[in-house]
Amino acid sequence: MSLITKAAIARDHNAPLIIEDVALRAPGRREVLVEMKASGLCHTDLSIVQGNFPFPLPAILGHEGAGIVRACGPDVTRVKEGDHVILNNLIHCGECEPCRKGKVTGCVLRSELDAMPFHWNGEPLRTLSGIASFARHTVIRQEQVTVIPQSIPFASAAVVPCGVMTGAGAVWNDAKVEPGSTVVVFGLGSIGLNVVQAAAISGASRIVAIDINPGKEQVARLFGATHFVNPRDLALPLKEHLTASLGGLADYAFECVGNVDLLAQAVDLVDPFSGVCLAVGVPPQNQSITLPASTFYLGRTVRGTHIGDGNPLEDTPRIVSDYQNGAFKLNELVTHTLPLDRINEGFDLMKTGQSIRAVILY
Amino acid sequence: MSLITKAAIARDHNAPLIIEDVALRAPGRREVLVEMKASGLCHTDLSIVQGNFPFPLPAILGHEGAGIVRACGPDVTRVKEGDHVILNNLIHCGECEPCRKGKVTGCVLRSELDAMPFHWNGEPLRTLSGIASFARHTVIRQEQVTVIPQSIPFASAAVVPCGVMTGAGAVWNDAKVEPGSTVVVFGLGSIGLNVVQAAAISGASRIVAIDINPGKEQVARLFGATHFVNPRDLALPLKEHLTASLGGLADYAFECVGNVDLLAQAVDLVDPFSGVCLAVGVPPQNQSITLPASTFYLGRTVRGTHIGDGNPLEDTPRIVSDYQNGAFKLNELVTHTLPLDRINEGFDLMKTGQSIRAVILY
Repeated sequence: MSLITKAAIARDHNAPLIIEDVALRAPGRREVLVEMKASGLCHTDLSIVQGNFPFPLPAILGHEGAGIVRACGPDVTRVKEGDHVILNNLIHCGECEPCRKGKVTGCVLRSELDAMPFHWNGEPLRTLSGIASFARHTVIRQEQVTVIPQSIPFASAAVVPCGVMTGAGAVWNDAKVEPGSTVVVFGLGSIGLNVVQAAAISGASRIVAIDINPGKEQVARLFGATHFVNPRDLALPLKEHLTASLGGLADYAFECVGNVDLLAQAVDLVDPFSGVCLAVGVPPQNQSITLPASTFYLGRTVRGTHIGDGNPLEDTPRIVSDYQNGAFKLNELVTHTLPLDRINEGFDLMKTGQSIRAVILY
Repeated sequence: MSLITKAAIARDHNAPLIIEDVALRAPGRREVLVEMKASGLCHTDLSIVQGNFPFPLPAILGHEGAGIVRACGPDVTRVKEGDHVILNNLIHCGECEPCRKGKVTGCVLRSELDAMPFHWNGEPLRTLSGIASFARHTVIRQEQVTVIPQSIPFASAAVVPCGVMTGAGAVWNDAKVEPGSTVVVFGLGSIGLNVVQAAAISGASRIVAIDINPGKEQVARLFGATHFVNPRDLALPLKEHLTASLGGLADYAFECVGNVDLLAQAVDLVDPFSGVCLAVGVPPQNQSITLPASTFYLGRTVRGTHIGDGNPLEDTPRIVSDYQNGAFKLNELVTHTLPLDRINEGFDLMKTGQSIRAVILY
């Protein structure tokens, strides 16, 4: 028994998404059917459409969403029909050895993210991270959803799984920013702003937000930045300027643009002994990162993050709870909302840097 | 009041060290006078002499040693005359904020490592890490020495501060290798062998030791390696060979050669989500490290280590205690001993790869 629903399909590279009817199978064991209520548009979706990030098409993209559970397959224990849920990029059974060790990306259920419950023109359709939030309905493992209070607007909840979790998780789970730290953030899109607000919540005492768009200063300060730097306005090289104004190097730097040259700059801005640089942005995958041989000599760390290594059982509820008590901003991230049939306009807003997050409302 | 003692002085690049009389001032506040009994020869000393590692000459090198406290300056509380001590590369007051946070490289006393208690021909002489173990006597801060039982041979104790601490500390403090892990180690000099034995002590279940010298297999297995690979013997590329024989990628890789191409290979051998690669070897500082842009996409970590971030108050006593109860091998690292006036022969042994550690005995 399959359901016919609407989805935005990325059919070819560099072509607009098309809205089509697709067939969705019923939820199997430990799976749920979710009616999507909102989906964020992320730069990774755009990079896939533009061919800058390798992912085979056709596919239903969209990897941050929120909706309502409409049916449960056998053995579903964590959620029930009618629950409002966030659809996470990572899956977490909580019972396997990697989950117990806190390595959320190693969960034995990881292969479930590649399940293909949709068919289009008789062929199975790929989805990104098993979410398919560019479809009006989806089928997903119970271990990939987090129940949220019904009072939370879907549009605000929808941006949590990728834009929020990647930035906040990079700060909390990967860098483990400590109170009193000095933090530098390159790029103030959705992810960079969430790095800023998570660092502020972690008690960083100085948060330097860097962007070549002067319009980002106000929002950066709203999210907790203590300094704003537009490199185009500087008389000195960035490192000299920051070293002088901060009285030294940073404890943590976050590259949230996906530019290999900025990553090298970010690495160079952290303390050579104990500094940590997070490569959060995804650079074009055919490029290389070149670092001086002295980079690691005294102990510096450079690491990546996979969706902030965010745990659906711990990090998603923490963010939702912080949002409810006013400590975490979500509404401010959603600058535009659109219906599904105008999804291509959402990508245009992203290309021109007008939106923090454009969100599809179903 | 100064003491006249003998030291091996590195006067010029690419020239033999010369044995000269030098003047050593009396210990000041919280300093002690140590009579050196043994000093290891490390590849970093050789790199400095060869001009591959930037360090101004003339200088008294030697940065791993053990000896006997012969005099104490005012306010010395941690040691007393007659104590046998190891001279550490890092200083640890235990009271400042970085020390309390476990950031041993951040100790506020770090500048003490640059103290210059020696004079030669009327000019102050630099030392490496404030140790000067190529001198028969030295003056050092009490926070930089660790008292050891008198039953421990000085030659075995002397190799702890650099060769042992760098390898073992990289495993314990920086990578934090977990039981059951798969570990790959490039280069089986003193540091690589100590990575192998520390990983074995940490419970790694598979330890792959890699070296182009087939003579290293026996000693690698003695130190705990479960696999030995000579890349020159392989029909397949190293990654294919290891992936096939291990059934996947490694959890941890340690580059202990100081070769930027090997470092890139080591990075590529660890799990892209949770893998950690330690850059332990020191590459020529005028080179670059080039990594694919995809390196950090899923969460991989690359980090350096500074002498294993080893804490003189915790790690040095742990190694000494493990040595005493038979769990940590030190004697096997000392393959050659020489008097100070034959120090240049010790460097020749290193260049030809004959020694694990050559040790000067005073």
